[in-house]
Amino acid sequence: MQKLGKQTIKFDTPPTITEVASIVGPKEANGPLAKYFDQCLEDEFWGEKTWEKSESKIIKETVNLAISKSGIPNNDIEYCFAGDLLNQCISSSFGLRGLNIPFLGIFGACSTFVEGLSLGAIIIEACAKHVLCAASSHFCSAEKQFRFPLELGNQRPPTSQWTVTGAGAAVLSKTGNGPFITHITSGKIIDMGIKDSNNMGAAMAPAALDTLLCHFNDTGRSPSYYDVILTGDLGHVGKEILTELALEKGYNIKSNYNDCGVLIFDKEKQDTHAGGSGCGCCATVFSGYFFKQFKERKIKRILLIATGALMNSTSSQQGESIPGIAHAVSIEL
Amino acid sequence: MQKLGKQTIKFDTPPTITEVASIVGPKEANGPLAKYFDQCLEDEFWGEKTWEKSESKIIKETVNLAISKSGIPNNDIEYCFAGDLLNQCISSSFGLRGLNIPFLGIFGACSTFVEGLSLGAIIIEACAKHVLCAASSHFCSAEKQFRFPLELGNQRPPTSQWTVTGAGAAVLSKTGNGPFITHITSGKIIDMGIKDSNNMGAAMAPAALDTLLCHFNDTGRSPSYYDVILTGDLGHVGKEILTELALEKGYNIKSNYNDCGVLIFDKEKQDTHAGGSGCGCCATVFSGYFFKQFKERKIKRILLIATGALMNSTSSQQGESIPGIAHAVSIEL
Repeated sequence: MQKLGKQTIKFDTPPTITEVASIVGPKEANGPLAKYFDQCLEDEFWGEKTWEKSESKIIKETVNLAISKSGIPNNDIEYCFAGDLLNQCISSSFGLRGLNIPFLGIFGACSTFVEGLSLGAIIIEACAKHVLCAASSHFCSAEKQFRFPLELGNQRPPTSQWTVTGAGAAVLSKTGNGPFITHITSGKIIDMGIKDSNNMGAAMAPAALDTLLCHFNDTGRSPSYYDVILTGDLGHVGKEILTELALEKGYNIKSNYNDCGVLIFDKEKQDTHAGGSGCGCCATVFSGYFFKQFKERKIKRILLIATGALMNSTSSQQGESIPGIAHAVSIEL
Repeated sequence: MQKLGKQTIKFDTPPTITEVASIVGPKEANGPLAKYFDQCLEDEFWGEKTWEKSESKIIKETVNLAISKSGIPNNDIEYCFAGDLLNQCISSSFGLRGLNIPFLGIFGACSTFVEGLSLGAIIIEACAKHVLCAASSHFCSAEKQFRFPLELGNQRPPTSQWTVTGAGAAVLSKTGNGPFITHITSGKIIDMGIKDSNNMGAAMAPAALDTLLCHFNDTGRSPSYYDVILTGDLGHVGKEILTELALEKGYNIKSNYNDCGVLIFDKEKQDTHAGGSGCGCCATVFSGYFFKQFKERKIKRILLIATGALMNSTSSQQGESIPGIAHAVSIEL
């Protein structure tokens, strides 16, 4: 692999995304992408007593499904990169504690899935044959932890996003038929001083812009190179901001840019306000919808930019702004 | 680099640890290793209004110090791996948001520093010239978050450990005079069903054993190869357990095994019970004491095994056991 510019790595023998899996909750099951997910749950608990245990079960079963669909023996998978939004990433560590695969916990907030794909791709090209990447989120456990108890029935402002209940997992391999991870552009922390924790799209859009510009600078590519430029969970508000910011910088992405948080819910019918969010958002939308688009040769080149808001409820209470981050992977056939 | 066995990577051109830095709190300043740290703080707040902001400042200043001691221009450092114990790792993301270096957040609980050294070493050998790794913890923010408000003045059982207030940072480089990271052995999640969150040493010792055995199996080395086998924060209780468990498996590590949590405090005089813990424990003890031992040629080979307890306060309240993990790096001259 080689560095292009300051933030991008180009792979000489690009790792292949061999297989993926996605399991989502009931809200996502009523959304426009329902038929693309491997499994849709009927309730948020999935037979568990708590939302946290349910989220652990979701990521566990998603990972098991990805491994089983890939046909690769568990023993041949050399590393697992995983993370989630729960305090101390317990969804991943409890869900995957029985996996018996070297485990590297990562935290990039909602950018976690792409951070995992990035590090997984590096270690594949460097020395491993198969690597697993996974991320999850859960609406109920996230609301409880970041905002208010669900039982309060708080009103949500129009800029607020709906945390996706679900997990996505991908098995990367040294050889295969693609889609391939050809480049990664790892993001810096960008904090533009946004303090409204009900407007994550605005807080994260500048980070997405920074990574987008870096990627184009480092690779010499332009927006039209990609069939789809896809952000993780900027939602309706953040998507509009990014589109405008990019245009100001000379990049018109209007025709081929979309956002997983925009795609996963029907804004009018589902009362999800500014759209989906959470580590599970781009993990499920990529693993559910876009991977199949690749397999059916309907798209050939995606720039997937997952964004994360690196805050917690204490930092907001202490008057802090919300630092954002965005990691990008270029996925191509 | 090449894989040895299932969990170990051997580097062909081992990355060098160019420089390190450590800043600790007042308790650590009264401990036996005080003179080895770069800076000892007089109080836990360091001029900040909250413990969280203080912890962010500690990791920020530690990282700045490591970069400045290394003499490497900020712009030449290509990646930063960092993490901590606070919810959503806010110490790292707030402390390092001004760094302007691609940021990869990691979470391995108290194993975070060594997880960072491991991933940093991989990316150095693969394609980068300089990488930064950092981790922090803070007694007050950790007690508040994981246990009880400090104001309650709760009694601590004898098996409980004292979270280190401090941060350690290391700059890794492709070339240099060492000490070198020659091997990494990444750990699996090991859960032996320990539920006592006041006995982390017992919860984490089986993970340390698993990684220790893997490392010896994969490399063909035996305990006597190393001047020091050093665990991160098993403390007095966990150290004793690991020594016994290793002996049962045929490895006598009594003569050259120690633990950072045992070394950082004076058990008799400092009322720290089972010893130090936290991401900052092995990060400061390695960056403070052991790095200098290398530089003075007093030791030539360390196996540093950092352990982590992958739980949070909610998981304990929900009756869960405590999954452990341990990541090892072999550091040699």
